Amino acid sequence: MSSVPPAIASAYDPERFRAEGHRLIDAIAAALVSWHAREGVVLPWRPPADALAEWPLARGELVADLQRILASSTALAHPRYMGHQVPPPLPGAALAELVSAILNNGMAVFEMGPAAAPIELAVVDWMARTLGYGDRAGGVLTSGGSLGNLTALLAMRQAKAGFDVWRDGLHAGPPLAVITSADAHYSVVRTLRIMGLGEGGVIVAPIDAQHRLRASAVEAALASAGDRRVIGIVAAAGSTATGAFDPLDELADVAARHGLWLHVDAAHGGAVALSAAHRDKLAGIGRADSIVWDAHKLMMMPALVTAVLFKQGGHVYDAFAQQASYLFAAAAPDDTWWDLGQRTLECTKRMMAIEVWTALRVHGEDFFGAVVDRLVALAGELASRVRASGDFELAIEPALNIVCYRHRAPGDLDAHNRALRRRVVEDGRFYIVGTQLPAGYFLRSTIMNPLTEPSDFDDLLEHLRALCRG
Amino acid sequence: MSSVPPAIASAYDPERFRAEGHRLIDAIAAALVSWHAREGVVLPWRPPADALAEWPLARGELVADLQRILASSTALAHPRYMGHQVPPPLPGAALAELVSAILNNGMAVFEMGPAAAPIELAVVDWMARTLGYGDRAGGVLTSGGSLGNLTALLAMRQAKAGFDVWRDGLHAGPPLAVITSADAHYSVVRTLRIMGLGEGGVIVAPIDAQHRLRASAVEAALASAGDRRVIGIVAAAGSTATGAFDPLDELADVAARHGLWLHVDAAHGGAVALSAAHRDKLAGIGRADSIVWDAHKLMMMPALVTAVLFKQGGHVYDAFAQQASYLFAAAAPDDTWWDLGQRTLECTKRMMAIEVWTALRVHGEDFFGAVVDRLVALAGELASRVRASGDFELAIEPALNIVCYRHRAPGDLDAHNRALRRRVVEDGRFYIVGTQLPAGYFLRSTIMNPLTEPSDFDDLLEHLRALCRG
Repeated sequence: MSSVPPAIASAYDPERFRAEGHRLIDAIAAALVSWHAREGVVLPWRPPADALAEWPLARGELVADLQRILASSTALAHPRYMGHQVPPPLPGAALAELVSAILNNGMAVFEMGPAAAPIELAVVDWMARTLGYGDRAGGVLTSGGSLGNLTALLAMRQAKAGFDVWRDGLHAGPPLAVITSADAHYSVVRTLRIMGLGEGGVIVAPIDAQHRLRASAVEAALASAGDRRVIGIVAAAGSTATGAFDPLDELADVAARHGLWLHVDAAHGGAVALSAAHRDKLAGIGRADSIVWDAHKLMMMPALVTAVLFKQGGHVYDAFAQQASYLFAAAAPDDTWWDLGQRTLECTKRMMAIEVWTALRVHGEDFFGAVVDRLVALAGELASRVRASGDFELAIEPALNIVCYRHRAPGDLDAHNRALRRRVVEDGRFYIVGTQLPAGYFLRSTIMNPLTEPSDFDDLLEHLRALCRG
Repeated sequence: MSSVPPAIASAYDPERFRAEGHRLIDAIAAALVSWHAREGVVLPWRPPADALAEWPLARGELVADLQRILASSTALAHPRYMGHQVPPPLPGAALAELVSAILNNGMAVFEMGPAAAPIELAVVDWMARTLGYGDRAGGVLTSGGSLGNLTALLAMRQAKAGFDVWRDGLHAGPPLAVITSADAHYSVVRTLRIMGLGEGGVIVAPIDAQHRLRASAVEAALASAGDRRVIGIVAAAGSTATGAFDPLDELADVAARHGLWLHVDAAHGGAVALSAAHRDKLAGIGRADSIVWDAHKLMMMPALVTAVLFKQGGHVYDAFAQQASYLFAAAAPDDTWWDLGQRTLECTKRMMAIEVWTALRVHGEDFFGAVVDRLVALAGELASRVRASGDFELAIEPALNIVCYRHRAPGDLDAHNRALRRRVVEDGRFYIVGTQLPAGYFLRSTIMNPLTEPSDFDDLLEHLRALCRG
C-alpha cells in the first residue's frame, strides 16, 4: 500500500498546527481584551430560525471559522454576563483543555492515562478532604452534574433498597422513593425516572421561607410514603433556583434516625468550602453518604468537571462493577483500583482532572476562596442596590451568589418581568435569566464573573429601566 | 467593596494567556514532531502505585506542568500506538476544543450557545443523512457512547414497554428485556441495569463464527423470554471486541416482524458510511429506530463527541421531556426546538459540535472516507503479516480496523499471550491491548493512527518475538 496520503499528512502536520495555533492564541487574547473592556454585546442574539441557516457545512478555514464562533457566542468573559451558573473559565484552564484534547488519553484504564489517572486520584482526594471527608472516602470525576447525580443515586439504590436491584431489577422488591425538596435541580427527578422509579419515586417535600429543606418536612414526607420504601434524601448545597443551602446537620440527623442515604447536590456550592467566610453554610456535609461537586461552577473550570464523592469509598464500585475483558485486567476492584473506568458510567472520558490540578498548583487553594468571596460580595452589592431602588424588589436575601429580583410595575408582574427579560436577551448588552419561584416569576442573576464591578449593577438597573420605558 | 484583586486580575489577564498560549503551542508542536518521528516510547509506563506519588498538589508553573503531562501520557500520535479504539485527534480539532473551553457556552438553552446550538443541529443533521436517515430524523450530541446508548435505550423503553414507564415506573408493567449479542459493549448491559431491568433485562444471544448477531439467534432469544416483554434489539456496527458488523437488514426485518425497537451501536463503525469502499457494511442502518455514533473514534475527534440519532426525530424528547422553569421557556418541545437541553441527560454540556463542523469545512467529507480507507487497509496489512508469519495467528479475519491475533507457543496459549501483552506495556515502545474471545485470549490492535506505516507492523511482530525471547 502507499505511504501516508498528502491530505492526511497535511492535516496532522505539526507545523500547520503551530501556525494555526499561534494565530488562534492571538485571536482569543484579542477577544478577551475586548470582552474585559465591556466592548460589544454579551449575547449576540439571533432568532434561532435565522441562526440555523448561518452555519452551513461549506468549505472554510480553521482560524477564520473559530474567530467567527468567538464573535457569535455568549461572552461569559464579559463583566456584564450575569446569567446562568456557568463561569468564564480561567484562561489557563482552557490551555489545559487543549492538552487534554491533543493527548486524548481516555483513561478508562491506567494505561490510557498514566498521567491523567494519578492526577485524577490526587484531585478527587483533595476535593473529598476539602469537604471534610476522611481517609475512607473515594470518588471519581465524571462529565457533569447530571451524570454525577445519577452515579450517586445508583449507589444509594444499591445500598438502601434492601434487595439487589442491580442483579434482580426493580421488580424484585417494593416500590422505592427518594425525598427531595421542591427546589431540587431537575436532573434529580429526571435521574430517578431514568432509574425506573417513576413519578412515585420522588417525594417532593416543601421548602421553608428561605427555600430550605428542613428535617420536619422530611419527617412529614416519610409519613406520606405509603407502601413505598424510602431509601434516601437528596439535599441541595446551593440550590439552582436561589442558591439556598439546606441544613445538612439537621438532615444528616434525620437520615441517621431512619437509616436513609443522604446525598448532597453541592454542584454549585461545594467550592464554598474553600472560603473561610462562607464555609459554615456547608456544616455537616462531611456526614453525607455522597456528594456531587462541579468544578466547572465556582472553581472557574470549563465544563465539564464533576466530582462524585463517597464517604465510604467502596460505594464508588457499587453501581457499575462489571467485567469487560477487553478493558479490565481483573474482576475484583481491589486489584485494579487505578482503572477508573470501573467507577463511572463513562468508558472513554476526557482528562478532566488536569485543569483542576494545574490551576491549584498555579494559583494555590486560597485563590479559589478569594474568588468565591468576591462573587458572594458582588451578589450582595446587587441585592443592596435592588433593595434601595424603590422600583425593584428581591425574592429572598441571596444565600450565595444568586440574586432573584423583579421590576415592580402596575398590572401582571409575571408578564411584565417575562417581557422585560425577553427584551434584555434581544438587546444583548447584559445577560440575565429568569426563574419561576412559588412567589412568581423573577429575574435571576448568578454572579460568576469576578471581573464584574459593583458599577455594572448600577448600569444593569438603569438598562432595565430604559428597556421598560422603550 | 474593592476593585478586582490583583491575583484574580492576573489569572484572567489576556496578556498572560497570550504568552502562556504561545509557549504551549510550541511545546505541543515539538511533541507532535517527536511522536511522528517515532522517538521515545508510546506508553511511558510507571507502576500505578509509584505514579500516584508523582503528581502532588504543590505549587507549579502552568506550561511546565503541561509539558510534563505531555511527556508522561500515552502518545496516541505515535505511529506505534495500536491499542484502543481512540484516535490521535486532528490537531485542528484540538484547537477547536480550546475555543470551546474558553467560550464555555453550556447550550442547554439557545441563549447559552447562539453559535454552538445551530452548529450542533447542522452536524446532527449531516450525521443523520450520512447514515441514510430521512427528513424526519433528529438527534443530539452527548458526552460519550455510554450516555448515548442510555439516551437511546430510554427512548426504546418509553416507546415499546406498552405502559408509561417514565410516569408510572417499572412496577406498573411486566418485566422488560432487550436482546443483544454476546459481543455487545459492556455499556449496553450496564445501561439496562441502570434503568432498573436487572440481569433478566438482557437476553444475550449467541454470535456466529464471524461474531455477528443473526436473526435466527434473535428468534431463539425471543422464544426464551418467558414472562418478560421483549422491547428491542441492540445491534453492533463495528463491535468493540472484533469490529464485526451485525447484518442490519436482517435484524431490521426481525424487529419489524415482532414490533421491536432496533438500536444500532455504531459508536465505532458509523464513520464507515463515509467510505465508498466499505459503507456496504452498514447496509440497512437507515431502518434502525436509533443509532449511536462516536465522532471521537473514526472521525478523529478528541473525546467526547457522540451523536444519538432517531429515525423519528420526536423520540429525542421521549426520554427526558420535563419542565425546568429556570431553563426552558415553554413546556412544549415544539416551542423551543432550539433549546437542546431537553434532548439530553446533560444540562450543561461542552460545545462539542464545533470541532466536527470546522473539520468538515476545513478538510471536506471525502477526507474522512480516505482516513477510514487507510485505517482498514493498514489493518489488512497487519492481518496479512500475521497470516504469513508462521508463529502468529489471527482470531478472525478483521472486518474493519481491529485485528485480534496471538503468538503461538507451547503450553498455555492464554497465559503466554497475557504475559507477552504485559511485557509490551511495561516496555512501552509499542502499545497494543488484549481481549478475551470465546476461542481464548488474543492480542488486539485497533489501527487508529493514519500515520502508521505497514513497516511498523513488521517491527511490531519482531518486537513481540524479541520480548518472548527476552
